[in-house]
Amino acid sequence: MSLAAGYPLIAIPGPSPLPERVLRAAHRISPDIYGTELAATNEHVMAQLKRLAGTTGHLAPYIGNGHAAWEASAANMFHRGDHVLVITSGHFGRSWAQQVNEMGVMVETLDFGALPPEPEALARRLAADRDQIIKAVMVCQTDTASACMADIPALRDAMGDHPALLVVDAIASLGCAPMMMDDWGVDVLISASQKGLMSPAGASFVWFSDRAALRGRTDLTTPYWDWHLRANATPDALWRFWGGTPPVQMIFALDEALRMILDEEGLIAVWARHAALARAVWAAGEAWGQDESGIRLSVADPASRAASVTAMRLPEAEALRAWTATHCGVTLGIGLGAEDPANALRVAHMGHCSAGMLMGVLGAMQAGMVALGIPHGAGALDAAARAIAEPA
Amino acid sequence: MSLAAGYPLIAIPGPSPLPERVLRAAHRISPDIYGTELAATNEHVMAQLKRLAGTTGHLAPYIGNGHAAWEASAANMFHRGDHVLVITSGHFGRSWAQQVNEMGVMVETLDFGALPPEPEALARRLAADRDQIIKAVMVCQTDTASACMADIPALRDAMGDHPALLVVDAIASLGCAPMMMDDWGVDVLISASQKGLMSPAGASFVWFSDRAALRGRTDLTTPYWDWHLRANATPDALWRFWGGTPPVQMIFALDEALRMILDEEGLIAVWARHAALARAVWAAGEAWGQDESGIRLSVADPASRAASVTAMRLPEAEALRAWTATHCGVTLGIGLGAEDPANALRVAHMGHCSAGMLMGVLGAMQAGMVALGIPHGAGALDAAARAIAEPA
Amino acid sequence: MSLAAGYPLIAIPGPSPLPERVLRAAHRISPDIYGTELAATNEHVMAQLKRLAGTTGHLAPYIGNGHAAWEASAANMFHRGDHVLVITSGHFGRSWAQQVNEMGVMVETLDFGALPPEPEALARRLAADRDQIIKAVMVCQTDTASACMADIPALRDAMGDHPALLVVDAIASLGCAPMMMDDWGVDVLISASQKGLMSPAGASFVWFSDRAALRGRTDLTTPYWDWHLRANATPDALWRFWGGTPPVQMIFALDEALRMILDEEGLIAVWARHAALARAVWAAGEAWGQDESGIRLSVADPASRAASVTAMRLPEAEALRAWTATHCGVTLGIGLGAEDPANALRVAHMGHCSAGMLMGVLGAMQAGMVALGIPHGAGALDAAARAIAEPA
Amino acid sequence: MSLAAGYPLIAIPGPSPLPERVLRAAHRISPDIYGTELAATNEHVMAQLKRLAGTTGHLAPYIGNGHAAWEASAANMFHRGDHVLVITSGHFGRSWAQQVNEMGVMVETLDFGALPPEPEALARRLAADRDQIIKAVMVCQTDTASACMADIPALRDAMGDHPALLVVDAIASLGCAPMMMDDWGVDVLISASQKGLMSPAGASFVWFSDRAALRGRTDLTTPYWDWHLRANATPDALWRFWGGTPPVQMIFALDEALRMILDEEGLIAVWARHAALARAVWAAGEAWGQDESGIRLSVADPASRAASVTAMRLPEAEALRAWTATHCGVTLGIGLGAEDPANALRVAHMGHCSAGMLMGVLGAMQAGMVALGIPHGAGALDAAARAIAEPA
Repeated sequence: MSLAAGYPLIAIPGPSPLPERVLRAAHRISPDIYGTELAATNEHVMAQLKRLAGTTGHLAPYIGNGHAAWEASAANMFHRGDHVLVITSGHFGRSWAQQVNEMGVMVETLDFGALPPEPEALARRLAADRDQIIKAVMVCQTDTASACMADIPALRDAMGDHPALLVVDAIASLGCAPMMMDDWGVDVLISASQKGLMSPAGASFVWFSDRAALRGRTDLTTPYWDWHLRANATPDALWRFWGGTPPVQMIFALDEALRMILDEEGLIAVWARHAALARAVWAAGEAWGQDESGIRLSVADPASRAASVTAMRLPEAEALRAWTATHCGVTLGIGLGAEDPANALRVAHMGHCSAGMLMGVLGAMQAGMVALGIPHGAGALDAAARAIAEPA
Repeated sequence: MSLAAGYPLIAIPGPSPLPERVLRAAHRISPDIYGTELAATNEHVMAQLKRLAGTTGHLAPYIGNGHAAWEASAANMFHRGDHVLVITSGHFGRSWAQQVNEMGVMVETLDFGALPPEPEALARRLAADRDQIIKAVMVCQTDTASACMADIPALRDAMGDHPALLVVDAIASLGCAPMMMDDWGVDVLISASQKGLMSPAGASFVWFSDRAALRGRTDLTTPYWDWHLRANATPDALWRFWGGTPPVQMIFALDEALRMILDEEGLIAVWARHAALARAVWAAGEAWGQDESGIRLSVADPASRAASVTAMRLPEAEALRAWTATHCGVTLGIGLGAEDPANALRVAHMGHCSAGMLMGVLGAMQAGMVALGIPHGAGALDAAARAIAEPA
Repeated sequence: MSLAAGYPLIAIPGPSPLPERVLRAAHRISPDIYGTELAATNEHVMAQLKRLAGTTGHLAPYIGNGHAAWEASAANMFHRGDHVLVITSGHFGRSWAQQVNEMGVMVETLDFGALPPEPEALARRLAADRDQIIKAVMVCQTDTASACMADIPALRDAMGDHPALLVVDAIASLGCAPMMMDDWGVDVLISASQKGLMSPAGASFVWFSDRAALRGRTDLTTPYWDWHLRANATPDALWRFWGGTPPVQMIFALDEALRMILDEEGLIAVWARHAALARAVWAAGEAWGQDESGIRLSVADPASRAASVTAMRLPEAEALRAWTATHCGVTLGIGLGAEDPANALRVAHMGHCSAGMLMGVLGAMQAGMVALGIPHGAGALDAAARAIAEPA
Repeated sequence: MSLAAGYPLIAIPGPSPLPERVLRAAHRISPDIYGTELAATNEHVMAQLKRLAGTTGHLAPYIGNGHAAWEASAANMFHRGDHVLVITSGHFGRSWAQQVNEMGVMVETLDFGALPPEPEALARRLAADRDQIIKAVMVCQTDTASACMADIPALRDAMGDHPALLVVDAIASLGCAPMMMDDWGVDVLISASQKGLMSPAGASFVWFSDRAALRGRTDLTTPYWDWHLRANATPDALWRFWGGTPPVQMIFALDEALRMILDEEGLIAVWARHAALARAVWAAGEAWGQDESGIRLSVADPASRAASVTAMRLPEAEALRAWTATHCGVTLGIGLGAEDPANALRVAHMGHCSAGMLMGVLGAMQAGMVALGIPHGAGALDAAARAIAEPA
């Protein structure tokens, strides 16, 4: 017997649960792509995406996933042979570094394992860069794999007056945790549709500052990736925004999702919700971790934990994931990039996620631990409920 | 701040959560209603509905809700002035009795308040009916309001060889709890689309035995309600099944929902799932009820509790319902027909409901009790998780 | 080879093509049926339905089809043995008469075959009713089978000061042709969701005047059909509008469809569109009918032709219907109630129907006549295009 | 007044009309992207895409539009400074040439204006390439702008034993006109989701032969575009197919669309349908073009006309397009790349397009010509209907 039949609770760190309204908005045939209605919707989406990022700067949208945006941004920022510094706190930071390196860029990593970046280390490295050969400092705000949260303003401060661009990958954090691109001095921001933006996978975005724009075209820039062409597009030529045929249904989906985030719930409230949900997961994780159970949140310092996903070491995690999926209709994230993936997992609390859904995920986890005989400290669900009850 | 944004967890006892697949199946334009494809689908739905009820008897489908099916069945079974016995264990049984009475039928009730029916009482009453004037014994398998479960085979036994028809309202139980219409000797069975059948509200069904069919037309029978016309319809005249234009999208929805229940999960497994979910709610309710909290499951005897919905007395329930909806995205059922509705509520676990969803509902309830300062015994969520872990 | 793959063009006279937006609106799970949002939407739908009918009177909505509304209205207007006059111009009028008769009402028909009703004949019959035993004059505004359009104001005039209720079935015309219930003195109006209302089949409606309301309850009135209970419902008890569980998704569908009709396109424009589309079909039909082809519009007088559906005699119509469905993706209506159904068909231009769609239907018909060697006059498509070009 | 309300008939040459079933398939939340179900569906889609192209070779899928696939393929085939020959017959061929040139490739064009390519000219040019510096011959099977159809086998023949790769852009033709990649000796084939594939815009595809694969990585190859990584992906690492997060809903859409094309209608039948629809448009266009009306099909030779889109010179085309959209719900394609765009338009008959839809489009066009006083020859709709009637 299984108790899994029901609305699936997908707690993987992306693609995140799609709101009914977003799916509904995308459920329509394509109108005339040369008409004014679609162009106006697209224009509105672009404006909303800038609000979401906290910028009045430039925006280049791409049909693609996060890896596309990685390549697109690098193709605009760098020449072959340029030297960049990638701060890594997990699997995705390291993948990013590798991808950029394979494009012909000299990549140096400042690696923190699965721990959050230390601004002091960055300051030291840049101080040593007397000739200012480092063209960019690149960092994931949240590395989805390790579930770290980097302190972007502190890293910006640590850069002092070094001229490198600050490039932030906010794929796993935008729309979940605060991002104020202009205020924080972020030069280039990268994100995608399928996590905090509550939309189908298939669109990604690069926001960039005037300072970044000054780089002009490089020897890596291609017509398709060229961010100037996209950022300078105007509604009378909709296709220029997207470098060709626009992703019609995606535009409708983004329009609805951004309305929910920005105009209905409100960005401040959305951030606060994610913070509260995260605290509930942490409370559960810490309780389960009592009594030498071997369960442990991957990031020790709450200030460095992601708002959108929590990673934990959990003995027999792989078996637990299978059990909750099969018996409860709850899908947990794999322990991506963990030392011991079979004993690690991730719980996403990202995008369209309520306290009810989250308590369901945690409840299913505990049921699974009981069923599988995985030792766990007591009181986790009560602790999570208390965290939900006192969200501020 | 609210933590409600997410997929809504609707735990009201109907309309129950609609599976994505069912909504998708209904999302299509109407084909030719004189074509063979729709007729074949309808034919299949009729066969599936008989499987669901455990009968090889007759089936009359109606566009309508449960109240429509009450009237439809009465209009076929009774003459004005007939005498019937309605066993009542809650609000819906009493409403049914009243509706039939207003149609001109002499209704006697065997009222058990909010408690399950006692077969012995029925046996005594029928024994006293020397002239066998009682034409039917009518009972809700589950009265949605009180969340009682009647023991249908025991009631049938109690009827002995009295010739009254046994009429069972399974609106709140079909597809959740066992029903074997033919084996149990049920003469007329009534249900609707929006609960265990996981479909939109708007269709209801009356199954009837050969013995019931022998009643022929009565002075209450009208062309629209006439069950013979519908039960004897054949695919070459689709409209006859539905007494006029068929509910096209509903047919598609039912087809998909019944496939999920009967062909994929399997009816035995579906019943077992509901039983297990119910036990988890009871475990939570009993734990909350410790320490003189004033929380109490409405039905004391587990054997008489419904598989699909649980009612409980809970101080400040009305405030709690508002809190879980506003803060967690969890909607609980009102305390319908309870003595003190403001301090009563119902938790549905009906149809498309997984252990994950249910744990989310219970978790939100406990968070609300904490937030609102409602006293509650400890360990409820742990108890529910244990029940989920050990479903058999 | 077939050229049928594409969006199906369904030109049957109901259920009519569902707009994408209406299907989308209905594609959502059921919210709390005790919440205020659904109640407010329902309230708005009720107000819109009154606007659509042109009345400030009463409205009783039913989950059901047109046959349900026939029975519902009769159960409120008549006592057993009452005498009524049904004006019939086709299959549906006769079915209505039969249904009401089977409920125990004495039905007299004023039968015009498949021709439109003559007001003078009605005047004569009522003049002969010295004792005013006729309780109601019942007429279909458009009999869907014969595609006649009755002149309701003229019939009302013909009634003079006879006290009978004027009861109009506008199932096939409401939302397509003008209806001003109050101005025209209609006492009871009947319609359904699946034709001009562009919604799924499954809801029907009875509007009634104060004069009709004065009939009170009759010996045919049952709790489920009682129109007073429904018409007097208030948003704090949503279920009373629908005599039980409300049809949630249907309410969402109706809300969207009525917004399209009343708030966006506008009722006057909707009527004008249907009139123009009808003229285009007539132009084609008349051209095909030249040269002794044997093709003939069923209703000779344009003033008596329906705005929403056109019936025609067409040799080998049955083969033509099969051909257009199989080869072109165009489904035509059967010749329901025609003398010679195999040589008759109907073309609907009802609800969500554009000039483009209609020209496609006509074009497919002509292609089929060519393919099957059915003789037909020349110039039909050109004539239809001219009619479209000069809509006023 | 407008007659536009109805299901929109979108006759622009992409994005083409989305089948209800495809939209429905895409209307679901994202499952676990590390699960086996999605991986299996993706695997099936890849196999179906190879069937569609007529190849057993390699396939690299991209989230992106046609321009993305242009860049992706070039980045794998060419080194900076390589010399290629682009055969151009319209706007898109020239855009392609320009894009590849901007990537650093030396592009020579063999330009035929808006006329189909002449194999002899290609043969002559290649014969002159004694040093075989031309690395590739690139050609659009159908240039969407001019609506030409290139004769791919003839061009292949003309290449003789020249070692250049034959690269075919079938964005506007795949799934509409025959393509047998392996049999015809095409080395690299490019297409996208939103035309003949009947899916939302947002995915594009590059099929390549073993010979093309031998090029290895070039100095233009980047990790994201690298076709080897994608073509060699296996289901246990779904993300590798898509160079990162897979486009979940797109995969579901493609799966359904390809099932309709390959498994239900059948590829041969799909090609035949497009050919028949095209002939109907040509018949209408030729009839309108009589009597010195100034209307003229852009491509004179039927053998060189596209199966999926027809371009025509039509005086006041811009006004006509506005009229059909506003008055009939029919959207025609703009005269992209035409000498005189205001007097040119395109009619698409691409993908999910039936004879009924097409006759509707043509009927609306003629109505508009009448309404606007645009001179046109007689008998066009009759001619189109005859073409539909005799498809073989």
